[in-house]
Amino acid sequence: MSVHLHRELDRLRGRLLSLAGEVEQQLQKAITAVLNRDPQLADEVEAGDRKIDQFEVELEEECLKVLALYQPVAADLRFLITVLKINNDLERVGDLAVNIARKARTLSQMPPVRMPFDLDGMWRKVQEMLRQSVDSLVNGDADAAEDVCKRDEAVNAQKKAIRQQVEQLIEQHPDQVKTWLQVLAVSRNLERVADHATNIAEDVIYLVRGHIVRHPARFRDRDQD
Amino acid sequence: MSVHLHRELDRLRGRLLSLAGEVEQQLQKAITAVLNRDPQLADEVEAGDRKIDQFEVELEEECLKVLALYQPVAADLRFLITVLKINNDLERVGDLAVNIARKARTLSQMPPVRMPFDLDGMWRKVQEMLRQSVDSLVNGDADAAEDVCKRDEAVNAQKKAIRQQVEQLIEQHPDQVKTWLQVLAVSRNLERVADHATNIAEDVIYLVRGHIVRHPARFRDRDQD
Repeated sequence: MSVHLHRELDRLRGRLLSLAGEVEQQLQKAITAVLNRDPQLADEVEAGDRKIDQFEVELEEECLKVLALYQPVAADLRFLITVLKINNDLERVGDLAVNIARKARTLSQMPPVRMPFDLDGMWRKVQEMLRQSVDSLVNGDADAAEDVCKRDEAVNAQKKAIRQQVEQLIEQHPDQVKTWLQVLAVSRNLERVADHATNIAEDVIYLVRGHIVRHPARFRDRDQD
Repeated sequence: MSVHLHRELDRLRGRLLSLAGEVEQQLQKAITAVLNRDPQLADEVEAGDRKIDQFEVELEEECLKVLALYQPVAADLRFLITVLKINNDLERVGDLAVNIARKARTLSQMPPVRMPFDLDGMWRKVQEMLRQSVDSLVNGDADAAEDVCKRDEAVNAQKKAIRQQVEQLIEQHPDQVKTWLQVLAVSRNLERVADHATNIAEDVIYLVRGHIVRHPARFRDRDQD
């Protein structure tokens, strides 16, 4: 029984990794659509979200089947519940990719502006956090998960700096307010992706170490927006 | 065994209702803090979030204990997993109350402006959705849950109207950009609360009717921001 259960848990772990990969691709496309003013790519992201949604539903069903069939306890039960929660987080990250893609579409219809901040660099940081949070589950590595939580502060700071720059830009060019609000929304959505990565990492720390860190960290680092 | 299990499930249902009540109070205080420019009330909300966080952690532990002890299957298992998911949503709604409270504190330090839109009216709509989503779980009422999903569109439209007004106000008064961005953030956070209520309602529909509506609805109604 236990061998079968662990085979099932391994399979679910692999499925979660696949979902994380799909979600990351959606985000990459959405950011590229913003940077290259590419509405077709934005459409692709929006269409691709159905696949993510379907994936989440199936993975949840599979988790429930394993729960009902094998009735795991202790660490195995906790692992399954963590997979369910992370599955949910990843699906919502997929929604954020769609939000960003919609901003890309709107921005592509507005006069181009020169961006004085590094959205792509912010995305790289967030991407790294998201990858590392999911990898920390797969490897049961609480140290790596802790590192993800620490890095959330840098992303929050970057988002705050962008907001301040946007405020200045709007004061100087009030006629461009719509454009700058779209750009601000892109950075805010990226920051929310980092929050989800932090949630995932906090769940992994609890899974591995058995004590709850998630709220103090979230309280400290929460998005200010 | 089944009698004990159902007694436990009833208890969890009651606990979830209490958490929803606490979260609603936090939101009410946060909105009042914005409208009355009351930084002390905003501090109360921030301090009160620890109680919500603690509540969520305890409820999750209780769900896991019931899972391990009674090993429920079929509808009971699905109910427990739904409680776990809604618990998570409610905790994040608590975080949104803190976000709003922080905006209230910032706004109270800025020169007062006359708001040309009805934030309190928006909050009443969102509050109704949140209550009805949790009640629909407690009563197993998929029709009520469906109604919540439908009402999300009106909140999204209201949020969009506020954004357009804010854009105009900023064009007219670029020196007030910081104030208007804070107000916009309040309406955005309220709109995210409505999204969580919709998520909860979609989970209830699935629990009761056994088919998945959540993604088409979320896809259609998602926050545009």
